[in-house]
Amino acid sequence: MIRSCVAVIGPGEEAPPDAVRDAEDVARRIARSGWVTLCGGRAVGVMAAAARGASAEEGLVIGLLPGTDTSDAAPPLTVAIPTGLGEARNAVLVGSAQAVVACGINAGTASEIALALKAGKPVALLRPTPETAAFFESLSGDGLVHVATDAEDAIRWITTAIGRTSQ
Amino acid sequence: MIRSCVAVIGPGEEAPPDAVRDAEDVARRIARSGWVTLCGGRAVGVMAAAARGASAEEGLVIGLLPGTDTSDAAPPLTVAIPTGLGEARNAVLVGSAQAVVACGINAGTASEIALALKAGKPVALLRPTPETAAFFESLSGDGLVHVATDAEDAIRWITTAIGRTSQ
Amino acid sequence: MIRSCVAVIGPGEEAPPDAVRDAEDVARRIARSGWVTLCGGRAVGVMAAAARGASAEEGLVIGLLPGTDTSDAAPPLTVAIPTGLGEARNAVLVGSAQAVVACGINAGTASEIALALKAGKPVALLRPTPETAAFFESLSGDGLVHVATDAEDAIRWITTAIGRTSQ
Amino acid sequence: MIRSCVAVIGPGEEAPPDAVRDAEDVARRIARSGWVTLCGGRAVGVMAAAARGASAEEGLVIGLLPGTDTSDAAPPLTVAIPTGLGEARNAVLVGSAQAVVACGINAGTASEIALALKAGKPVALLRPTPETAAFFESLSGDGLVHVATDAEDAIRWITTAIGRTSQ
Repeated sequence: MIRSCVAVIGPGEEAPPDAVRDAEDVARRIARSGWVTLCGGRAVGVMAAAARGASAEEGLVIGLLPGTDTSDAAPPLTVAIPTGLGEARNAVLVGSAQAVVACGINAGTASEIALALKAGKPVALLRPTPETAAFFESLSGDGLVHVATDAEDAIRWITTAIGRTSQ
Repeated sequence: MIRSCVAVIGPGEEAPPDAVRDAEDVARRIARSGWVTLCGGRAVGVMAAAARGASAEEGLVIGLLPGTDTSDAAPPLTVAIPTGLGEARNAVLVGSAQAVVACGINAGTASEIALALKAGKPVALLRPTPETAAFFESLSGDGLVHVATDAEDAIRWITTAIGRTSQ
Repeated sequence: MIRSCVAVIGPGEEAPPDAVRDAEDVARRIARSGWVTLCGGRAVGVMAAAARGASAEEGLVIGLLPGTDTSDAAPPLTVAIPTGLGEARNAVLVGSAQAVVACGINAGTASEIALALKAGKPVALLRPTPETAAFFESLSGDGLVHVATDAEDAIRWITTAIGRTSQ
Repeated sequence: MIRSCVAVIGPGEEAPPDAVRDAEDVARRIARSGWVTLCGGRAVGVMAAAARGASAEEGLVIGLLPGTDTSDAAPPLTVAIPTGLGEARNAVLVGSAQAVVACGINAGTASEIALALKAGKPVALLRPTPETAAFFESLSGDGLVHVATDAEDAIRWITTAIGRTSQ
């Protein structure tokens, strides 16, 4: 049976400590829910934290890397997909997920949230800045965006949003 | 000599009349500046307006379409590039431009603005909503974003931003 | 630890019975070798056979689909990645593998073999047509291509080619 | 009116002198036919020759580059599109053309011929090796492939193949 995937997105090198902790916590819960974790795959920031969290719970975690090799891949990944697409991989990453959790914000993360909404995917913004929450709520009139107060809240909302498709 | 390109981005079917008028006005000015206009290529909204404006001034205008054929291409385009990449074409569109002008907002346009900033491209937001201006100004600390009051202001700022690389 | 991936490629709807049998056999052996199987993901031909074979041996199998949803995905896949890239996904598929096995030939498969060679990946051609063998051997002067007489031969050659990186 | 595009493809650094001469000759004829020339855009081999030939006849020539900037672009290009897609740009290049002319062969060029045939585009192989001609003729049962003896023959066949869509 094809397993449901949830993408954890957020900044790399410049990720703040809170976003890193949230990403690891969320990925642990994704794994415990029986879902596959998707992330951007590099060994820094939110990407590395998502790989670490999912792997700590024996969960499958797949990294979709921007480059053509796996030299910068996070070691806890189960599978590394070096897309070679540069930033166009952001569209593949969120398009492959049934739902998305954003931890922290920068330009790359903003592009992923926007591409997810464009593709009709539910997006939980985990403790977003006021500007981030206000902007994406203004974009999305159909309940696709949820401002989550913590990882538990994000997972609870996503569980409802993706329905009973998880294994 | 390779010519400079400026991308005009914005909503398609749901574009408000103001955004459509601004896009046509901006594309006319891009053409008169000797630049090539890039747009999303479809025969609706801001994409169609950009094609119409550039072509009215005998400017070159290239549409980068999401689909695999040109059946939905705006007729005034000089060249239609059916990328077949879906929304991943947004990264190619802004990555190919020296600067970007955004007229109106929706999820697809937001992804293009974010991808442009990620790639270090100057972006003029033409009469943005308050939420749009506040969000992208909060993302970009290095003068890559300009809130433009009209098409003339957008072009003036872009002319400075891309320097003397135009033909 | 990041696991090694081997791609099984070949025709979809028009795959001959021999290619389908070979693909299932090869994917069983890939799974038994502890590798992850990658394929094009659709529920037809070589793609479906690869998913079936890997899954029969409890192996992980990931499908990289050309479209934007999983409606045409092979049910035995572990994870479906709807890339939305159309045929550009062929480059992602072979670029994500440490080695490639081709079962049968058509234009899409030919593009994947060529892209794999371009990326420097070892390719086993499993019982190819004479024209296929002659062409790809003429392209590749550096031992990247192997004409395999059966699935066992293909796996033996790939095991050597990708070295001791498998888990 | 949207103009018809013909892609000229072939090796870069390792292109033999014959392929380079053929590419320049073909691109001159494409420009004189009123078509836009598409190529891979880099300043070497067949790509550079196509840009040179089209530009010598005042024709429009667009380069679709694999990288994210234009630092390696052929100077005679009219427009450079740095796709940032790596080899996945090969699918975009041939998918954007009404017809394709191949001058010389290597793995990258082979992937483009195969992707063109997959997309149903007519492909002229200009003085191909025997293995190249035999392989692609074996793939294509529907008259999509033509073995051309010289540039004039290639253009004559393409003119028929793409019909009266040129301006």
